[in-house]
Amino acid sequence: MPTLVLLRHGQSQWNLESRFTGWWDVDLSAQGVDEARAAGKLLKDRGYEFDRCFTSVLTRAIRTLHLVLHELDSLWLPVAKDWHLNERHYGGLTGLNKQEMIDKVGAEQVKIWRRSYDIPPPPLADDSEYAVGNDRRYAGIPVPNTESLKDTIARALPYYDAEIVPALRREERVLVAAHGNSIRGIIKHLSNIGDNEIVGVEIPTGQPLVYELNDDLTVRDSYYLSERAA
Amino acid sequence: MPTLVLLRHGQSQWNLESRFTGWWDVDLSAQGVDEARAAGKLLKDRGYEFDRCFTSVLTRAIRTLHLVLHELDSLWLPVAKDWHLNERHYGGLTGLNKQEMIDKVGAEQVKIWRRSYDIPPPPLADDSEYAVGNDRRYAGIPVPNTESLKDTIARALPYYDAEIVPALRREERVLVAAHGNSIRGIIKHLSNIGDNEIVGVEIPTGQPLVYELNDDLTVRDSYYLSERAA
Repeated sequence: MPTLVLLRHGQSQWNLESRFTGWWDVDLSAQGVDEARAAGKLLKDRGYEFDRCFTSVLTRAIRTLHLVLHELDSLWLPVAKDWHLNERHYGGLTGLNKQEMIDKVGAEQVKIWRRSYDIPPPPLADDSEYAVGNDRRYAGIPVPNTESLKDTIARALPYYDAEIVPALRREERVLVAAHGNSIRGIIKHLSNIGDNEIVGVEIPTGQPLVYELNDDLTVRDSYYLSERAA
Repeated sequence: MPTLVLLRHGQSQWNLESRFTGWWDVDLSAQGVDEARAAGKLLKDRGYEFDRCFTSVLTRAIRTLHLVLHELDSLWLPVAKDWHLNERHYGGLTGLNKQEMIDKVGAEQVKIWRRSYDIPPPPLADDSEYAVGNDRRYAGIPVPNTESLKDTIARALPYYDAEIVPALRREERVLVAAHGNSIRGIIKHLSNIGDNEIVGVEIPTGQPLVYELNDDLTVRDSYYLSERAA
């Protein structure tokens, strides 16, 4: 039975500081490290094994995956890292504290930028300290300067179809360690959630979300592992 | 200029206990973690960047690589993990304390098994607690039950030629985190060291060994990074 486990990275330093992060490469906080290890222990306790892993090119997701695989004695598994699984690019909001933003433009505007399906925040200036266009990990890649959730899903889902679906069709057990919005894209697709509904779906950090799939990759069952009895 | 940096994993728990390890998957010791981080810091201080990494399927080498890449802010780099870069399989010596072995069969015999180029130790019994033939990471792979150094090199070097050389020919900067004997194979080849000489070449744990290569991949210079002035 093909199995897909989706895992949002543990708390990052900027989650802790309530700053918009997006493509800025912030590390895990101490709590985030603990969350990742706990996710690995939970998966191990429940007897989970994987055949293949996918993650973004952002440190907080990669380290979360490594900490989980270490708990599972499975660091040897193949891991594909790809920018298509990156967090949504928050444009000009990147680096800003959410409260400061609210004070500046009002809660309603921040909510629109964060929670509209297809309205992106203002673009990040090319000369911003948070611009990543010159980061060599993105050489040859069309780095966005802002994204709506729709934009994020529009680049995450084709990657899912091209790289992750073939593994699931081989009946592999797949672990994806990624970000709130790239995971939203996969959930939207698998659970058939509407545009307006998906923006309100919260993905907790460090909580393995299990999709048990049928052979045709329709969903047989899905649940957060911590909410199921052992 | 193609650059190859070879790194033996940091001290493992069994290095600490002087036990023959081979393919048994022992984790890093606390000192080994420190050694790996120090190697990463040294590489960062000296301005090293990499394009591609290779490691074995053994935890101690993979974690060493991850700790180094974390220090280098380069966890996003592609990493190939392959059993061909595993440590030499020590056969029936696996798990034994080196002093206990010496007491049992004599220092001379242990030295022969450890340090002959082409004499393998006695095979590991299939029902040994240290047999890894049923480990799923080796599914479909001809797991040896013992290896001489010659045997180890005979599987490590073809992998080097097939996977690492093409990257170097593209002028990539390559980091290999592996084991004493798989690294000996690469050194023997690059530095043209004789069969009897290579067995005596000691590879310290956690010390980046730099090979600066010419375009035809002959050696321009090689040195332990810690022994060069900054």
